[in-house]
Amino acid sequence: MKKEIAIGIDIGGTNTDYGLVDSEGKCYVKKSLRTDVSENAETFLDILCDDLKKSITEKNGNFEIKGIGVGAPNGNFFTGKIEFAPNLKWKGVIPLVGMIEERMNLPVVMTNDANAAAYGEMIYGAAKGMKDFIVITLGTGLGSGIVINGEMVYGHDGFAGELGHTVVDPEGRMCGCGKKGCLEMYASATGIVKTMHELFDTRKESSSLRKIERPKLTSKDIFLAAQTGDTLALEAFELTGKYLGIKLADAVLFSSPEAIILFGGLARAGEFIFKPTKKYMEEYLLPIYKNKVSLLPSELDKENAAVLGAAALVWKYTVKK
Amino acid sequence: MKKEIAIGIDIGGTNTDYGLVDSEGKCYVKKSLRTDVSENAETFLDILCDDLKKSITEKNGNFEIKGIGVGAPNGNFFTGKIEFAPNLKWKGVIPLVGMIEERMNLPVVMTNDANAAAYGEMIYGAAKGMKDFIVITLGTGLGSGIVINGEMVYGHDGFAGELGHTVVDPEGRMCGCGKKGCLEMYASATGIVKTMHELFDTRKESSSLRKIERPKLTSKDIFLAAQTGDTLALEAFELTGKYLGIKLADAVLFSSPEAIILFGGLARAGEFIFKPTKKYMEEYLLPIYKNKVSLLPSELDKENAAVLGAAALVWKYTVKK
Repeated sequence: MKKEIAIGIDIGGTNTDYGLVDSEGKCYVKKSLRTDVSENAETFLDILCDDLKKSITEKNGNFEIKGIGVGAPNGNFFTGKIEFAPNLKWKGVIPLVGMIEERMNLPVVMTNDANAAAYGEMIYGAAKGMKDFIVITLGTGLGSGIVINGEMVYGHDGFAGELGHTVVDPEGRMCGCGKKGCLEMYASATGIVKTMHELFDTRKESSSLRKIERPKLTSKDIFLAAQTGDTLALEAFELTGKYLGIKLADAVLFSSPEAIILFGGLARAGEFIFKPTKKYMEEYLLPIYKNKVSLLPSELDKENAAVLGAAALVWKYTVKK
Repeated sequence: MKKEIAIGIDIGGTNTDYGLVDSEGKCYVKKSLRTDVSENAETFLDILCDDLKKSITEKNGNFEIKGIGVGAPNGNFFTGKIEFAPNLKWKGVIPLVGMIEERMNLPVVMTNDANAAAYGEMIYGAAKGMKDFIVITLGTGLGSGIVINGEMVYGHDGFAGELGHTVVDPEGRMCGCGKKGCLEMYASATGIVKTMHELFDTRKESSSLRKIERPKLTSKDIFLAAQTGDTLALEAFELTGKYLGIKLADAVLFSSPEAIILFGGLARAGEFIFKPTKKYMEEYLLPIYKNKVSLLPSELDKENAAVLGAAALVWKYTVKK
C-alpha cells in the first residue's frame, strides 16, 4: 500500500521551504528555494511546482499525495489569496491557491504563517487532542493562532488572531504597523532588544552586552548573557515576560484555552522567558482561571516546524477521515 | 395550532424575572419575583416553578412550551450549575438546570447573564443573521458574550468571555476581583463615576456635578450633565470611550467580528459613549480592520432584554429546526 503524504509549503520573504510529510509528522523530502529571486508569483510558482513534481516523481512508487498546505505571510484562508504581504516582492493580491491548484492538480489549502504553526501543534505537536488553545509565535514579530472548539478562529473576514498588535501601552513604542504600543514591539526578538536598550539608558549595572554596538545587539546575545547570570539581560527577560504574561491573561479571559503554546526563536530561551510569562499571566488572571491554563513550549521539530504546520492543513481539511 | 413559546428566566441578586416569549420576541407574560427572600435555592425554585406552572396553565389552551432558558450570574453552560455567584445569597455550587428540569419536566439551558444578552441579540436583536460578533454589557460592571462562527465562545471550561477583567493599566484602579486595572473599573457605570471623581481632583473647570455629594454621584447624573454641555462630564465620557475603544480594538484583533454591540445602561447614553469609543477603537486597529467593524446599540427592548436573552437560548439549543 502506498503511504499517504501531505505536501507542506512555507513561503517566506527570502526562502520557501517545502516538505513531503506523513500523517505522523515524518518528513521524507525537504527542500528550500529562493523566493526573492522571482520578480512575480507566476515565475516563482512555475519553478516551485516543477521542483515539487520532480520530488513527487522520484517517490511516486511509494507515495500517495493527498494535498498541499501552504503557510504564507498574509495568506487568507477564506479567499486563498495572499493580500498585500509587506515581506514579499510580489505586490497586491495574489490568488495563490488557485495558481498552485492549476499547476499541481491537487487540493490546496492556505493560511497565514502563525495559523500554520497552530495547525502544526494541533496535528503533530503540543496541542494534540486539545480543542481550545492558542499558539504564540515569538520571532522577529509576534504572531498568533487561536483555536476554539477545535477550529481556527478566522473571524468574519479571515483576519482574526493578530495578538501581536494588541496594545501594551497606548502611548508606547512605535510599531511598524503605524500604531503605538503593540505587543510585538515588546514580546519578540525585536522587542527584547528594545527593552535591553532602554535598560542600558535607565540603569547603571554593568553588563557584558554594553560592549556590543547597539545596532548589532540581538536577542540571542541577550539569551547568552542571561545564561551567564548578567543582571540586565535577566531583567530584560523578566520585563518581556511581564509584557507578554499580562496580555496572555487578557487572551485567557477571551477564550479560556486549555493551553497557550509558545513557538519560535524567543520561546527557545526556555525558563528565561517561560518563568516570568507564567508568573505575570497568573497574577493577572481571575481566580476562576488560576493554575488551569498550561503554558507550554512548541513540540514541533525546530528545523521542520513551518513545513509541518503547512502540511497539517492537509490532514485537517482535505483528507476525509 | 398552538403557539410555540420559550420561557426565559433572568435570575438576579434582588429580583428574578421571567417571561413567556415567542420566536419573534413577543413577550406574552412577564413576571417578577424576589430572589433575595429565599434563603436557599430549593425554596426559591419551589416558589418560582409553582408560579411558572400557574402562568402556563392560564395560557395552556394556546401555548406549546418548548423549553426554558436561564440567564444567571456565574451560570455555567456546560455543567448547568451556578458556581459561587458573589451576588446571590445561595452559596457554593447549585445544580440549577437539573433542579428546574425536575420541577418543570421541560428541557432547560442556562448561561451567564452577559452571554444571555448575546443570545438575545443573535435571535431577536442587532446581531440577527451575523455569525461573528461581540456583545458588551455596560452596567454596574462590564460583561461580554463572544460569538464566533455562529457559536458562543465558552472555552474549555465554560468561563470564556470575561472582557470586563482584561487589563487597562497593570497598576491601575483596584477591582472587586482582587486584580488591578480591570476594564470594568473604567468602562461601566461604576467606572465613569470613578473617572469623574478623578477629574474633580485634577481639573479646575466648574461643573454642576461638583455640587453632588461624592458617594451619591451616579452615571446618570454624568449623562444628564453631559446633555447640558458640562465640560467635565463630556470629558468623563471621552475618557470612558477611550478606555473601552482601545480594549475593543484588542478584541477585534482576537476574533475579527462583523460588529460589536453595546448593551445596558451606559450604552443608552448614545453618542456620548459611542462616538469616543468608535474613535479610539478605529485609532488602535490595524489598517486591515479599519472601518469594517460596526459599533451598534442593542436592539432589544430595554424592559424585556434580560428575559429575551434567556428565552433565546431555547430557540438556539432546544428547538430542532
